Amino acid sequence: MSLPVTPKVPFGGDYNPEQWPEPVWGDDYRLFDLAGIDTVTLGVFDWALTQPAPEVYDFALLDRIVERATAQGRMICLATGTGAHPAWLARAHPEVTRVDFEGRRHRFGQRHNSCPSSPVFRRLSAELARRVAGRYADKRSVVAWHVGNEYGGACYCELCAAGFRDWLRERYRTLAALNTAWYTTFWSHTFTDWDEIEPPSALTEHWRGPDHTAFQGITLDYRRFMSEAMLANFRDEKAAIRESSELPVTTNFMGMYRPIDYHRWAEQLDFVSWDNYPPDDSSPHWAALSHDLMRGLKGGQPFWLMEQTPSMTACRDVNQLKRPRVMRLWSWQAVAHGADAVLFFQLRASRGACEKYHGAVIGHAGRADTRVFREVAELGAELGRLGGATLGARTPARVALLFDWDSWWALEISDGPSRLVRYQQVLLAYYRALWEAGVDVDVVAVDADLSGYQVVVAPALHMVKGDLAERLAGVAERGGSVLTTFLSGRVDVDGNAFLMDVPGPLGPLLGVRVDEWDAREADVVNPVCLGEGADRVEVAARLVFELVIAEGAEVVGSYQADFYAGTPAVTRHAYGAGHGWYVGTALDQPGVSWVVRQVLDHHGLTGPYPDLPGLETTVRVTGDGTRLRFLLNHDAEPVQVTATVGGVDLLTGARVEPGEPLRLDGHGVRVVREE
Amino acid sequence: MSLPVTPKVPFGGDYNPEQWPEPVWGDDYRLFDLAGIDTVTLGVFDWALTQPAPEVYDFALLDRIVERATAQGRMICLATGTGAHPAWLARAHPEVTRVDFEGRRHRFGQRHNSCPSSPVFRRLSAELARRVAGRYADKRSVVAWHVGNEYGGACYCELCAAGFRDWLRERYRTLAALNTAWYTTFWSHTFTDWDEIEPPSALTEHWRGPDHTAFQGITLDYRRFMSEAMLANFRDEKAAIRESSELPVTTNFMGMYRPIDYHRWAEQLDFVSWDNYPPDDSSPHWAALSHDLMRGLKGGQPFWLMEQTPSMTACRDVNQLKRPRVMRLWSWQAVAHGADAVLFFQLRASRGACEKYHGAVIGHAGRADTRVFREVAELGAELGRLGGATLGARTPARVALLFDWDSWWALEISDGPSRLVRYQQVLLAYYRALWEAGVDVDVVAVDADLSGYQVVVAPALHMVKGDLAERLAGVAERGGSVLTTFLSGRVDVDGNAFLMDVPGPLGPLLGVRVDEWDAREADVVNPVCLGEGADRVEVAARLVFELVIAEGAEVVGSYQADFYAGTPAVTRHAYGAGHGWYVGTALDQPGVSWVVRQVLDHHGLTGPYPDLPGLETTVRVTGDGTRLRFLLNHDAEPVQVTATVGGVDLLTGARVEPGEPLRLDGHGVRVVREE
Amino acid sequence: MSLPVTPKVPFGGDYNPEQWPEPVWGDDYRLFDLAGIDTVTLGVFDWALTQPAPEVYDFALLDRIVERATAQGRMICLATGTGAHPAWLARAHPEVTRVDFEGRRHRFGQRHNSCPSSPVFRRLSAELARRVAGRYADKRSVVAWHVGNEYGGACYCELCAAGFRDWLRERYRTLAALNTAWYTTFWSHTFTDWDEIEPPSALTEHWRGPDHTAFQGITLDYRRFMSEAMLANFRDEKAAIRESSELPVTTNFMGMYRPIDYHRWAEQLDFVSWDNYPPDDSSPHWAALSHDLMRGLKGGQPFWLMEQTPSMTACRDVNQLKRPRVMRLWSWQAVAHGADAVLFFQLRASRGACEKYHGAVIGHAGRADTRVFREVAELGAELGRLGGATLGARTPARVALLFDWDSWWALEISDGPSRLVRYQQVLLAYYRALWEAGVDVDVVAVDADLSGYQVVVAPALHMVKGDLAERLAGVAERGGSVLTTFLSGRVDVDGNAFLMDVPGPLGPLLGVRVDEWDAREADVVNPVCLGEGADRVEVAARLVFELVIAEGAEVVGSYQADFYAGTPAVTRHAYGAGHGWYVGTALDQPGVSWVVRQVLDHHGLTGPYPDLPGLETTVRVTGDGTRLRFLLNHDAEPVQVTATVGGVDLLTGARVEPGEPLRLDGHGVRVVREE
Repeated sequence: MSLPVTPKVPFGGDYNPEQWPEPVWGDDYRLFDLAGIDTVTLGVFDWALTQPAPEVYDFALLDRIVERATAQGRMICLATGTGAHPAWLARAHPEVTRVDFEGRRHRFGQRHNSCPSSPVFRRLSAELARRVAGRYADKRSVVAWHVGNEYGGACYCELCAAGFRDWLRERYRTLAALNTAWYTTFWSHTFTDWDEIEPPSALTEHWRGPDHTAFQGITLDYRRFMSEAMLANFRDEKAAIRESSELPVTTNFMGMYRPIDYHRWAEQLDFVSWDNYPPDDSSPHWAALSHDLMRGLKGGQPFWLMEQTPSMTACRDVNQLKRPRVMRLWSWQAVAHGADAVLFFQLRASRGACEKYHGAVIGHAGRADTRVFREVAELGAELGRLGGATLGARTPARVALLFDWDSWWALEISDGPSRLVRYQQVLLAYYRALWEAGVDVDVVAVDADLSGYQVVVAPALHMVKGDLAERLAGVAERGGSVLTTFLSGRVDVDGNAFLMDVPGPLGPLLGVRVDEWDAREADVVNPVCLGEGADRVEVAARLVFELVIAEGAEVVGSYQADFYAGTPAVTRHAYGAGHGWYVGTALDQPGVSWVVRQVLDHHGLTGPYPDLPGLETTVRVTGDGTRLRFLLNHDAEPVQVTATVGGVDLLTGARVEPGEPLRLDGHGVRVVREE
Repeated sequence: MSLPVTPKVPFGGDYNPEQWPEPVWGDDYRLFDLAGIDTVTLGVFDWALTQPAPEVYDFALLDRIVERATAQGRMICLATGTGAHPAWLARAHPEVTRVDFEGRRHRFGQRHNSCPSSPVFRRLSAELARRVAGRYADKRSVVAWHVGNEYGGACYCELCAAGFRDWLRERYRTLAALNTAWYTTFWSHTFTDWDEIEPPSALTEHWRGPDHTAFQGITLDYRRFMSEAMLANFRDEKAAIRESSELPVTTNFMGMYRPIDYHRWAEQLDFVSWDNYPPDDSSPHWAALSHDLMRGLKGGQPFWLMEQTPSMTACRDVNQLKRPRVMRLWSWQAVAHGADAVLFFQLRASRGACEKYHGAVIGHAGRADTRVFREVAELGAELGRLGGATLGARTPARVALLFDWDSWWALEISDGPSRLVRYQQVLLAYYRALWEAGVDVDVVAVDADLSGYQVVVAPALHMVKGDLAERLAGVAERGGSVLTTFLSGRVDVDGNAFLMDVPGPLGPLLGVRVDEWDAREADVVNPVCLGEGADRVEVAARLVFELVIAEGAEVVGSYQADFYAGTPAVTRHAYGAGHGWYVGTALDQPGVSWVVRQVLDHHGLTGPYPDLPGLETTVRVTGDGTRLRFLLNHDAEPVQVTATVGGVDLLTGARVEPGEPLRLDGHGVRVVREE
Repeated sequence: MSLPVTPKVPFGGDYNPEQWPEPVWGDDYRLFDLAGIDTVTLGVFDWALTQPAPEVYDFALLDRIVERATAQGRMICLATGTGAHPAWLARAHPEVTRVDFEGRRHRFGQRHNSCPSSPVFRRLSAELARRVAGRYADKRSVVAWHVGNEYGGACYCELCAAGFRDWLRERYRTLAALNTAWYTTFWSHTFTDWDEIEPPSALTEHWRGPDHTAFQGITLDYRRFMSEAMLANFRDEKAAIRESSELPVTTNFMGMYRPIDYHRWAEQLDFVSWDNYPPDDSSPHWAALSHDLMRGLKGGQPFWLMEQTPSMTACRDVNQLKRPRVMRLWSWQAVAHGADAVLFFQLRASRGACEKYHGAVIGHAGRADTRVFREVAELGAELGRLGGATLGARTPARVALLFDWDSWWALEISDGPSRLVRYQQVLLAYYRALWEAGVDVDVVAVDADLSGYQVVVAPALHMVKGDLAERLAGVAERGGSVLTTFLSGRVDVDGNAFLMDVPGPLGPLLGVRVDEWDAREADVVNPVCLGEGADRVEVAARLVFELVIAEGAEVVGSYQADFYAGTPAVTRHAYGAGHGWYVGTALDQPGVSWVVRQVLDHHGLTGPYPDLPGLETTVRVTGDGTRLRFLLNHDAEPVQVTATVGGVDLLTGARVEPGEPLRLDGHGVRVVREE
């Protein structure tokens, strides 16, 4: 199974006509027409509507909603509606609600509120999916199934505890193996019966919060288990859908979302979709990394942008408005990185509850003459002109960034050396350097096939599992470059330290050993000198300072202060036909970028406009080999560059000649079909 | 029923002789005589004393306490003693304690610890009130009844859940109506049985805390219910008192206290009393607003200042001492705003527990030669000289400030646009502008009669209920000015957005529509230019920036930065014979003051000394039409002004002639009976 | 009973061979030999190992571990292993786990996890101690018993509630006495049955946290009870050990650890040991004070340094590496202050769980060629050369600093005047002044014999118990100096205010009364002028400003600002042949040091190098009267001083002549045996 079949980039989003009297629906479709909206996601929170009582299913209203959308010629992404359970279910089966990290059984409220281990939830959610699919599978308008919604959070109830024990039995077979993996001789923790095992929570192994645990192994496994328990919920529903439909099934992911290991989920989805809510408007590389991560989940297959706000969020303390043209820019950024759909949350603003101030295509007054509606409509028209040109196109990346939920978890639940090191920030710094260099990047799992890459960047690779060390060495052997950083190569699959020099099994590739490491508060800087002679630059290092001993590696940068002044901070090791790079400290962005450019330059991989960090460039290649070059100006000021290849700008129809000046407005976009 | 009948301003406060051996009482009264203390509040926490066991009432000690006070000729404000329940009650009936927001059943401890829905609490508290009133009603010394103490907090137990459901049945009649009001089609929340409804707490609809709710409608209704549940407790006791006494009944309010909607309580009290603990000594307008709010609760009827500290609090992280003369100044400020009593907490300092370091008239050493005692005694003498001159006098305000607990709640529990906007701060900025202008202000409920006001200021009027929009329009029609601000006119009585342009039903009056709104962190400033030509000033706007489209209104101020530079920030709309003003952003204090002065100047309402912001002036008018002008110098430095009218300074007996210089010491006070 | 008998300063630390396959043990001992490690602490967390099931004891592995250590000639500090209970115990007896301050029953996890009142825990922990002692008592290698581990925390379960009630019955005999002590007439708290009493927690008397209580008396007593409940656990095990062994018994303390009143514990230990983890590397006086406190617990008897990290901790947000030579410096600092052992946590780094990144003598790679191992080995060699020269030596202090857990608790749980005053900080400032002056200090309990001291410093002596006031007066009568500060002399043993002028019973000695007190935020400074004429200096005061009236005392310093400018801030009162000093505010360090130097100079007690604050000097005197002078340079830069007495440097064997220059390297140490 693969992506839904669509004639063009689907444009639209979440639509909840059940919140409105039917006369409003007519206004909606009139406005959808104005805006070029051809796709609606329906029924995401319809459980209470479609199953109003234990034995009662009522699809009358959903029938009318689907009928209307079908009659209006829209494509439908139809949800099973299980993102929140109904009140009657929580009352009839209190165990369907979750027990939180603090050990408190919740009662009915909010959403994403179901215990993943609850048998009644699993039975009824699958049954609802079965009925929805069975009822609407033959609608020509339905192009995809949307299971649940933004899976996440965690539950710590007795049912999950039992599920966890079963999962552990499956994983370890014997208590002896489990005790070894969890290192339970420490603090008298040896388990002598499976039933002694408790979920790691504020009442057992944790203090301060979910990242402070006495036993990293237990917490690591519980996160794995919880991620898989929710995956089982998804699989329940997907299997029920498959009884009557072969249409593609997805659920909406959330990008770099820590609780769920999307790499373990992705193979179960027919296609990936995700919700893009960037933290602010000054970090376009954040969204770029997230898009590339999502695209990497299924081997480069395009994904759907399932949600974005046309204007503003509501859930933050301060909800900044997207500036004019930014929504368009970010929509094209999604497409540039592999999105084959551009959808919003939400099409019409809710009147009440906690998302009433979340941005929508149609506001409370139902106007078409708002700035937001106008920008949406302009984008709709643009996507209409684009047609299917980008559908299915792939990204021809020669650079891979490793992203690993296990390393993320293991690093951030460690006691020592520094709680200030955040996995996402470390990766983001390296990704940003690649992004500013204008190079296409695949963000892939640690078990991905690395043989096609010239450069593999693996920052903060705290955990090294399976044959990863060998495969990384293989990249270098074949002439490639591998780059990793401080706090890499520290623990095995169980989160236990390697009984060898740091960086563990990566040592041979990198030609260094780390003798010890210092950690300092965020305001302490140790200057690092990089390069030599005229190229010598000084950058700032912070947080963690590994004391590196070169054992074969060449010193590229060294600390300038403290008792380890003059010792190596950055090294390059000739290995096979290639190199292993090691960065032993958290360099600032100029430092990271300097190192990354060295690597990229060695392979001639830098993009066409590396001196314009605000100008993003990506390439997608269609099935017939056509190269589509995207140029995205993230600055508010216009920029002018020289075209490197000729082609046609698909948004304007204008020809672009190589060597000619190419102007982009502030927040401007060009999509050039190269010739 | 109205205020207690007293010959002069009652002076004294909370007195707990039950904490001391009887010989100490003699010292107390000797010191009370020295200080001019004529009034004692007795028995506020006497439940464990007067009912030491389920079936046992014992008034022996309270009898002696009341006898002594009576014999000493004091006026008594006699409490029912139900502000905290006894330990035996919590043990015998665990359900009498509260369940907190986190879902935890509390056990015996602290005070204000009773579940308002507990039948046994309701029965026993009323019975105690009945017995206290029955026993002491015929004491000539008793002038008022004091029920409970500082009602507040909330409970989330099953009894409250049941009470909430009953309250909802009463309010909505049908689940269909409730589902509509709460907008439950959102997130699959449709309720199909009343018993499915849970109190909104950390275990149901909330996250992070009481202001973060998935369903604003549910949380709003629970606050209303809880406020009324406690009011029912007050009414229980008042009814029991009425069985034997017709004396006035009160309870002590806490000024701008968010959990209790005092507007809904006030009609049940015979007179209002409150406890004044300003946050610091640099915000005299904070107390002024609070006083005016308290006075406004019962249509301008004077109130009692039931508590203030003579020197310092104990409950804060840092408990600053009141500077010399400040206690006197603030006592007169209370009188200036309508207080007909000046009382302290506490007359003698407790030896132990959490208020032992709270200031008291008599400290642990029992001395009369302390600074604090001396200042108290001086004030006592002064009030003795004043006699009954101020009693019953009214404030002749032509300006109203709307204060609305529903808007407070609705605004601060909203998701979006900004959690940084705080209702109290917005109101305080507008009140301060009025206060600095020296104008008398009534702070009134949104259902108050507005026909007597020339100016109505309604900042952050988030919720517009009933005929409020019409009544505000009426003010303008008659030639008055109405001023409102950003985030007004957003939601209806259920907290649901109006399906029309912002500011909803206020639109016609204001002649604007708000197309969208931006929110930014607190350190982001957008300059706003106000006025024209030589009068043009630039002020700072922050937090929320509404993008206003004038539809008939005149632009008075406009943004100077960002993509909406040049668009309106402040507007004035000619409506009927008057005007509707709209301020679309959080202006700094100079900005707010500029706008408010424009409005006041238009009506010629500015006070006599508008250029002396530290000099407070108010007027009270006695039953026979005598005008009493209060001048209060909140600066530590002396100030001299020119008297505008002649009269007699009631504190010194000196005559004041119009046109003559009038000097006030630092923190000085004058009370001029105008002629 | 006294210290373990050892031929030299024991050197080594916590060793957990049970975490490793036996072949690793061989590596360990080889490395121990290289490092001069002669002492191992074994079995601290072995309960799950030695008692794998309710009725099963299995010492097979521990036997081999002890055998190996014995065979290798090491001294063993053998733990009973009860620092954490096994999982099977928590499952079989859920009541063995604790209920936390929030009222939540914990389940199996972490360590220090046993309810001290649990009968099954008490029975089984004693039984394990009995069996361990019985089995290994006759091993010649065992030199001491180590009970539990770092006792601490608290439990709030029903068993503890019952234990608390028993403890209260014992203390107060009658409820009337308890009600008086707790001042329960306040807030209707009178208890009429012992069973009404609840542990003070978040569900009863507390809000915000453990320091915010409605009833200081209840919270104070619960802390006393909990400290004693854990002491009972220690005594259980010690008594069981005594059935078969007369070897010294200890447990490892934690220095200034608030929850446990070590003064009440110390007499039950045969010798004191403690774990030294300084907060940072810039506060050497922090560790010095802690060492002196530990030494003072048993009347000056030397103690063991049971744990320190050779390099870094893991449990902090940021775990800074100890700089080169600092571990050695701090080890010698311990000896300089009375340590008769120098031990590390840990000898070999754990592979997993939360201490895997905690520093260790032997790291994961098992190398001897690390910086850390090298420094450990150098220290081991040095201690080998030292031999037994320092064992048993005493500190000849003429200055005492009073340290009082009751005052600590009473001060920090008070409501008012300021939560910003922290007991430890106040003491640290005065200790630092003494430390920088180079004077030996005994840190003693308030019931210590004060007759041998010329100077007694008692900062923040909030509670004055028993005959303390008389004994302090006695010090002055005999010609000594007593110094105390703001917030002293406030409460009696129950935490109730004295019914007299502040500073209560200390008033006659100090010749002042405090009329009132001001508190301000931390950024508010009131300058204080100290001294007169040419010696006049201005320092900064903060937080609390007591308004002092001299009643016989001489004014030494006065406030310079606010309405109390010119009034006394520091006073000295001639009393008997000596003086009582009072400091009414929180002076900055220069201010505190100025006052302390006045006092020391008066007695000629200042050390030899008072102008070198980074140079620490202490003296220990051996049983035969030999004086050992320690010089410790805490600066990174070298320093040169003039030797004041002659002798032999025990670390180098070099002679030191009086008057000759004496050089210390950065972080250098000298131990001079004076002649």
